[in-house]
Amino acid sequence: MSGTNQKAAIIGGGVIGGGWAARFLLNGWDVAVYDPAPDAGKKINDVISNARRSLPALYEGRMAEEGVLTFCASIAETVAGAGWIQESVPERLDVKHAVMSEIHTACEKGAVIASSTSGYKPSDLNSAGVGQRAIVAHPFNPVYLLPVVELVGDADKTTQASEILKSIGMLPLIVRNEIDGHIADRLLEAVWREALWLVKDDIATTQEIDDVIRFGFGLRWAQMGLFETYRIAGGTAGMAHFIAQFGPCLQLPWTKLMEVPVLDDELIAKIAAQSDKQSGHHDIRTLERIRDDNLVAIMRALKGRGWGAGAHLNALEKERAPHTQVDMTQPVTTVNRVIPVDWTDYNGHMNESRYGQVFSDAADFMMAQIGADEAYIANGNSFFTVENNIRYRAETRAGQAVKCQTQVILAEGKKLRLFHQMLDEKGAVLALCDQLLIHVSLTTRRACPPQPHVAAKMKAWHTLQHELPLPDGIVR
Amino acid sequence: MSGTNQKAAIIGGGVIGGGWAARFLLNGWDVAVYDPAPDAGKKINDVISNARRSLPALYEGRMAEEGVLTFCASIAETVAGAGWIQESVPERLDVKHAVMSEIHTACEKGAVIASSTSGYKPSDLNSAGVGQRAIVAHPFNPVYLLPVVELVGDADKTTQASEILKSIGMLPLIVRNEIDGHIADRLLEAVWREALWLVKDDIATTQEIDDVIRFGFGLRWAQMGLFETYRIAGGTAGMAHFIAQFGPCLQLPWTKLMEVPVLDDELIAKIAAQSDKQSGHHDIRTLERIRDDNLVAIMRALKGRGWGAGAHLNALEKERAPHTQVDMTQPVTTVNRVIPVDWTDYNGHMNESRYGQVFSDAADFMMAQIGADEAYIANGNSFFTVENNIRYRAETRAGQAVKCQTQVILAEGKKLRLFHQMLDEKGAVLALCDQLLIHVSLTTRRACPPQPHVAAKMKAWHTLQHELPLPDGIVR
Repeated sequence: MSGTNQKAAIIGGGVIGGGWAARFLLNGWDVAVYDPAPDAGKKINDVISNARRSLPALYEGRMAEEGVLTFCASIAETVAGAGWIQESVPERLDVKHAVMSEIHTACEKGAVIASSTSGYKPSDLNSAGVGQRAIVAHPFNPVYLLPVVELVGDADKTTQASEILKSIGMLPLIVRNEIDGHIADRLLEAVWREALWLVKDDIATTQEIDDVIRFGFGLRWAQMGLFETYRIAGGTAGMAHFIAQFGPCLQLPWTKLMEVPVLDDELIAKIAAQSDKQSGHHDIRTLERIRDDNLVAIMRALKGRGWGAGAHLNALEKERAPHTQVDMTQPVTTVNRVIPVDWTDYNGHMNESRYGQVFSDAADFMMAQIGADEAYIANGNSFFTVENNIRYRAETRAGQAVKCQTQVILAEGKKLRLFHQMLDEKGAVLALCDQLLIHVSLTTRRACPPQPHVAAKMKAWHTLQHELPLPDGIVR
Repeated sequence: MSGTNQKAAIIGGGVIGGGWAARFLLNGWDVAVYDPAPDAGKKINDVISNARRSLPALYEGRMAEEGVLTFCASIAETVAGAGWIQESVPERLDVKHAVMSEIHTACEKGAVIASSTSGYKPSDLNSAGVGQRAIVAHPFNPVYLLPVVELVGDADKTTQASEILKSIGMLPLIVRNEIDGHIADRLLEAVWREALWLVKDDIATTQEIDDVIRFGFGLRWAQMGLFETYRIAGGTAGMAHFIAQFGPCLQLPWTKLMEVPVLDDELIAKIAAQSDKQSGHHDIRTLERIRDDNLVAIMRALKGRGWGAGAHLNALEKERAPHTQVDMTQPVTTVNRVIPVDWTDYNGHMNESRYGQVFSDAADFMMAQIGADEAYIANGNSFFTVENNIRYRAETRAGQAVKCQTQVILAEGKKLRLFHQMLDEKGAVLALCDQLLIHVSLTTRRACPPQPHVAAKMKAWHTLQHELPLPDGIVR
């Protein structure tokens, strides 16, 4: 994934501003932050360190080099030379107007000026006489992990913004008509209000409400939304049938939504006390890391299924895959990645089977190089591994960067024998793998000779790599 | 997981009734179904076949033998001898009353009578003169995968029901006060209503609403609910701070919730058309399987994190783990499981690295047997694998049942050498693994002698297994 040498200005360094800073920084942008709070630096760095331990684990390849983070003393200094300016100050229109006005005076002409507001419309933000320049770019916490961002405002500006956000791994959703609360917060506020009633009326505690979500419909919504889920519930009779069946439930008395609960001290104290009981045994930093590890694991699970947030990540990686020709007179770098948290086990290190995953991925890279790529496999040919000898030399932990160097020992007829060395960042050996693959037909599921163009490439590679010294203990 | 030889009666065989039938059946219960619809048998069997390909994949051990499924011609015949009676007929109170009355006349005295209603209260259901017998047991589709079920009604009955539901892998949530819509549907109806407004007002399409959910807050809600998520968003300032910050958003104009959208033909047609465009390229059966595979992958990801729905599965398996002494004069059955969908790759079969997972799990089982169990590891000792030689003999696919037979080749000092055979249901070899482990201190991360009780057990095992014939190609 390539760096851009671009600069993002972050105005307001709370959880959301910090999340934006981390997202840009880890995608190779330089980031300047303005936040007058005395602890702003610590807060931003906390968020960035959360991002460093989770975001790279979403990808099977290494991310670009991080950009440079600076803290500035004024808005003018922060936005100077920035291509993206993100405002994440408190949700008060007078504060936002003042900030927007300062940004407008000092920023570059072509810069995107975006607000993280979860409720205000672009026309609210721009009513202080800054024209149509500011748009809404409403992200979801944690900004460095969750892909979706709602874009609202001027069509040219949102299109420009969309391209930039895609380049930092996000999934922009352009909201065509501006409304208060955009799309997501309309839904979230409805749930929040109903949840407040349930707590206030002593129907359910915060823990019980959370449980019914995370053990029930929350699991559904991580992969399909509301409508697709209900489409399935309607069965073969379809969506119209579902609506006809459940329509009446919209009426009273199934809801208390017609009224807004008063958030008086009593209700706030009740919620805070229930929440303490539910989650108070973890501090916020711990909860953040639990959440991030869970999100990484869920998104990686969806990656394997090629669906939803996982399909988005797969598409991103395909787009970013390097197309450089490898030098076959040398061992080939076949894997270059960070170990994700879902590859670790009770010993606190990468499980032995995931070393096998690294070597399986290394073989996939080599296969693609000799023309046994996705299209080749779709046409009914592949290589299957018939034997692996793995020697484990050192432990590997979540977040650790590893590389795999691969050498062709044999490439002859149906046989492909590879030798992989898994190395840490300093080049120390973590594990070795002697791997024998055999070419198969995916129709008969039996061994068969490779197609001519693959056979030719194998032969050429065998010749080129034949001169390399053999690894210790390997006999050709 | 042990069968119970108990009988469940399923009244109404739609998506929900079928899901209940599948959940009970696959957990070893006999299931009798009553549904007068001519295609009821096909519909139920479709749901059960979905369940067969997904539910067993949640567990690292084999489930009990399935019970026996029968279709009955009357309610009386269906409920005879049943310990659990589940009503899932359409959401019309007159229909439910008629069914409840028939059930009540014919059922066993101690049976649990539960309704799947998503809206009616137990007092509504029991108002036809059947006393307090019927409770609400409101599950989530797909019932065979999602664990949570809301229980409402008489305290003794819900307690009894809770024990039974736990035994079939569910997570009962007892709702203390009856209200229309219980807890979950209050929240769901609020979202549904707001979503209908967004579609009706042309703010967003069904696809856009689903995207903002599944790429945004849906991912959060699969692992933490609403309150725990917001607690984190509040940062170290906590829950009260969060509420104070977001409280004003509950007011108009951020919502249209004060009105209920009219579900006229126009709106229904609009939603159906948008939903067709969004999901119509998959038929419902395909969507169901995509959803189930996604849910299995997500829940398995959370299992690895020991959180939420995954923590529930882990607890369940621990509780169900067999405590029988293994016969050490024979090869030991160390793994007995079904291959989950998240272990397969682009070749349509189990990835080579997951064979390694099976053998890693086999080693864990052996370790536990010699006293190197969870407590031993928590105390700072473990075994690390130093070398694996895996020979792949045959492909293995998602849903396939496999066993692992393990033999001790060497157990001496710090060294433990195991030989694993992975077999299919007919005993044919799928893969072989020669595995060398070494005892380590988790403090120094270096090799060290095992604790005396583990060393003694290793020695005893070595002696007992020493007489077994050596596998082909293995030299002690």
